[in-house]
Amino acid sequence: MTTLPLPELSDASSHWVLTLSCPDRPGIVHAVAGLLAEHGGNITESQQFGDPDTDLFFMRVQVRSSASREELTDALDALASTFSMTWTLDVVGRPVRTLVMVSKAAHCLNDLLFRERTEGLPIEVVAVAGNHRDLEALTAFYGKDFHHLPVTRETKAEAEAALLALVRELDVELVVLARYMQVLSDDLCRTLHGQVINIHHSFLPSFKGAKPYHQAHDRGVKLIGATSHFVTGDLDEGPIIEQDVERVDHTRTVEDLVALGQDVERRVLSRAVRWHAEHRVVLNGHRTVVFR
Amino acid sequence: MTTLPLPELSDASSHWVLTLSCPDRPGIVHAVAGLLAEHGGNITESQQFGDPDTDLFFMRVQVRSSASREELTDALDALASTFSMTWTLDVVGRPVRTLVMVSKAAHCLNDLLFRERTEGLPIEVVAVAGNHRDLEALTAFYGKDFHHLPVTRETKAEAEAALLALVRELDVELVVLARYMQVLSDDLCRTLHGQVINIHHSFLPSFKGAKPYHQAHDRGVKLIGATSHFVTGDLDEGPIIEQDVERVDHTRTVEDLVALGQDVERRVLSRAVRWHAEHRVVLNGHRTVVFR
Amino acid sequence: MTTLPLPELSDASSHWVLTLSCPDRPGIVHAVAGLLAEHGGNITESQQFGDPDTDLFFMRVQVRSSASREELTDALDALASTFSMTWTLDVVGRPVRTLVMVSKAAHCLNDLLFRERTEGLPIEVVAVAGNHRDLEALTAFYGKDFHHLPVTRETKAEAEAALLALVRELDVELVVLARYMQVLSDDLCRTLHGQVINIHHSFLPSFKGAKPYHQAHDRGVKLIGATSHFVTGDLDEGPIIEQDVERVDHTRTVEDLVALGQDVERRVLSRAVRWHAEHRVVLNGHRTVVFR
Amino acid sequence: MTTLPLPELSDASSHWVLTLSCPDRPGIVHAVAGLLAEHGGNITESQQFGDPDTDLFFMRVQVRSSASREELTDALDALASTFSMTWTLDVVGRPVRTLVMVSKAAHCLNDLLFRERTEGLPIEVVAVAGNHRDLEALTAFYGKDFHHLPVTRETKAEAEAALLALVRELDVELVVLARYMQVLSDDLCRTLHGQVINIHHSFLPSFKGAKPYHQAHDRGVKLIGATSHFVTGDLDEGPIIEQDVERVDHTRTVEDLVALGQDVERRVLSRAVRWHAEHRVVLNGHRTVVFR
Repeated sequence: MTTLPLPELSDASSHWVLTLSCPDRPGIVHAVAGLLAEHGGNITESQQFGDPDTDLFFMRVQVRSSASREELTDALDALASTFSMTWTLDVVGRPVRTLVMVSKAAHCLNDLLFRERTEGLPIEVVAVAGNHRDLEALTAFYGKDFHHLPVTRETKAEAEAALLALVRELDVELVVLARYMQVLSDDLCRTLHGQVINIHHSFLPSFKGAKPYHQAHDRGVKLIGATSHFVTGDLDEGPIIEQDVERVDHTRTVEDLVALGQDVERRVLSRAVRWHAEHRVVLNGHRTVVFR
Repeated sequence: MTTLPLPELSDASSHWVLTLSCPDRPGIVHAVAGLLAEHGGNITESQQFGDPDTDLFFMRVQVRSSASREELTDALDALASTFSMTWTLDVVGRPVRTLVMVSKAAHCLNDLLFRERTEGLPIEVVAVAGNHRDLEALTAFYGKDFHHLPVTRETKAEAEAALLALVRELDVELVVLARYMQVLSDDLCRTLHGQVINIHHSFLPSFKGAKPYHQAHDRGVKLIGATSHFVTGDLDEGPIIEQDVERVDHTRTVEDLVALGQDVERRVLSRAVRWHAEHRVVLNGHRTVVFR
Repeated sequence: MTTLPLPELSDASSHWVLTLSCPDRPGIVHAVAGLLAEHGGNITESQQFGDPDTDLFFMRVQVRSSASREELTDALDALASTFSMTWTLDVVGRPVRTLVMVSKAAHCLNDLLFRERTEGLPIEVVAVAGNHRDLEALTAFYGKDFHHLPVTRETKAEAEAALLALVRELDVELVVLARYMQVLSDDLCRTLHGQVINIHHSFLPSFKGAKPYHQAHDRGVKLIGATSHFVTGDLDEGPIIEQDVERVDHTRTVEDLVALGQDVERRVLSRAVRWHAEHRVVLNGHRTVVFR
Repeated sequence: MTTLPLPELSDASSHWVLTLSCPDRPGIVHAVAGLLAEHGGNITESQQFGDPDTDLFFMRVQVRSSASREELTDALDALASTFSMTWTLDVVGRPVRTLVMVSKAAHCLNDLLFRERTEGLPIEVVAVAGNHRDLEALTAFYGKDFHHLPVTRETKAEAEAALLALVRELDVELVVLARYMQVLSDDLCRTLHGQVINIHHSFLPSFKGAKPYHQAHDRGVKLIGATSHFVTGDLDEGPIIEQDVERVDHTRTVEDLVALGQDVERRVLSRAVRWHAEHRVVLNGHRTVVFR
């Protein structure tokens, strides 16, 4: 997506969050801590993880420092070339510019907008786009713009182009599929790799595909679940960020499962969005590292 | 399996548990309550469920009555023919004669034996049978007989015949596969239909088959689970009795998942065994009704 | 509160929910089932519970019957006098007329209004009353009337009189204190006994009184919780309907606990309101029976 | 307690776990990472936490290094004096020498011994001491010594002296009160400060003191819990390490709560013991930091 103009910080010291990953080897933590110390940094929170399977190292640091972004960026660029490191630097708590995609179901959208306004979810929903108009009034109540992007088999390419234009025009950093009932094309998945989060209404990998609550009811499971994951070209196979479940019993109809499931879906999606917006989620192949 | 000689009850009034199922239609509860009232019964606990999908009706009643088993049985036989009813009658709390099948992993067996002795799990483990000898000492500590029934491809039929002989000789009512790593033949599954409970070390239907924790680790799930189910000829597809999960994160190795999973496995299995032994579980096609 | 004019039912058969309690003795289930059978009733769901501590019997039945309300009421009145029975009869799914009391926190109100509109929570919010005006716009978005009832030490009696007038004028059956930060007087508690549900932001009886999240943080607990209960004159001591918890760790500040707690609070409150509105909750002294 | 002779490590490189705490200030992570880098250390896992309330900094690092214990100790001593640091260094996975205190209830002892033998719980139970003889056979089955230390009001001081002698003689590092029904004296609590872990059978601070399940039943709670904490002179007020809960309903008798609670108790206690033995628990005033 886009590199955004960053907020100017008038106060002498800022609170930064740095995430990085690189091939594992001795000395990484020391080098990073040294870089931060040289820039007057005081570490307030830090987590590391070395994956023995992939030999990759992951780190997330929150640090207070009066150094400028330019100074930090230059130093990190130098370090990155030494360690073959991928990194991001942001100000702690900066709201991530987010586009929410919806169809007809309101529960996830309502939850995200409410949490943005009232509970400090660090996103700024810059627009809502729907292939139906059902959620236009809810969107308006929260003072957001609603874009109607209808999708048929014939207009799918066109709708995706409009979506991508919206992403670019609005400097969107994160796209959330909040029970959006259309499958994104492979091309779009590749273009927005690592920046699209979906909520699937089952405990993946159980009940992939359509009508998971019908499948769950038929199988007679005793727990239903929801899964939030990054979207990739492989439907329902993207890296999992968060999952949760709810207990059910034999008295529950399919309709009950759908209603109960909505609670789990919004809980799981809002957690995944929060962690992503707080730069706690790092891709590790087809899995994720989540520094909670 | 077998119809057992029932405990003689010297006290005037006994505490009975009656479970039944039949095609749904008006008047069943009234007829059952009437039958029990005629025999001086006082209902202490009762649950009903009518399945709108299958049009079957299920009921579990606990009742105190001074009527003899013969009197109750005669009355229930008459009622059953009117309502095309399947029923069972037992004394509340009577320990169910249970054979536990094991391989090498001790955690489920240890849990069942401990709960039988100390926590009132209403089973009587009449023997433990293993295709390995690893758990012989643990079995002996709890004063139970251990039968070594080694299984190879060549001896499988023979081993199953020995198992079935054991079931008959010991009047076994319930067979628990407590991490028993052999697949029962279709024939044996049919013979013991509804009387064999297995614990599968995944949240079914995710990760069927072998090495589910390896599959779960590879998929990067955020919860691992276990499933207790009746055993049928369809491997890992039998009616589910109970499931539960445990939270995991990216730091967990496959070995960690295995260790954590053992906690979930024994918890789930012991619940399923308890509910079955308390006559709370009724088959409803390929699903279960569990009156908790 | 009030006995409401009930919905006229044009279809031949209605779906009723009957709840009752009385001193325990043999024959109650048979008598109730008989009464229902005589009126052509087909029981679709039924639960009973006899409390060995209080010797009280509780029952909830859902039944389809073409009998009129008058016929059923007459028959139940006769039965009630025989068994010293308290009972209620309602149509399954009829929305309960509800007044929501609020202060400044939006999360519980937002949740209830959303669930009423979108998820079939069987209440009809007939008005929202607040001692502050903060939630007026949210209320208006859902098309509900907002009543501003400011409370000071001097005006408390007056405000409660206005509240009671509102309850009567609007035929209110249920009052929900959705993070309403005023204590109701003993008199009001008695007048509305069994009809006011509160959400307390702790796992009662831990951390009664003010600022429970501060108390929880100071004590270093590893789980925080919320409790929904009927309101009585004994502050934070009313009969508990539902509780739940969320895991926290040492990194959480008081502000984090407050934010996390809001999730638990709305979940717990909406469950308690649903079960009450579905006539699943029966008072049993200072405890509750909840037929889930 | 005692400084133990440490295992000799024949391999060139060892896996160390270092925990430390000190007043928070810039540069700690850099200094620690530098020290480890100088000794050829490769960090495999690391967590930090700065408590804004107490201005204390906490860190846990796992590091592979071929340096000797003496070299590391000397370097850490020097660092510690600069930063006013408290620290411990151990080999990852070394079993902690543990004394388990019991009375009559077997579930916690059985769980700890089973997990030590079968599931890699990193403790070595060097003895079991009981004020009753009930658990002698279970102890013997696991090949452990049982010490009978009866306690009456008159012999309490004597029994505690015997206990302390046992601790010293056996180089005990951790004392676990596994449903030990005696209160330790203030003196003993001070002597063994930070080295005694108890399991309390309620969700503290609810239901302190005796018969918590009776209290919970009487209050009509919908969840019961257990709490593992360090033992201090303030009964049931020691720093909490872990808590968990289990759902209950109105049908549960006090006896049911006791039985259900045993599951929660052993789960909570074994987690607390594991985390302590893995050096994941650090005292932070009357609270704990738990690096999970």
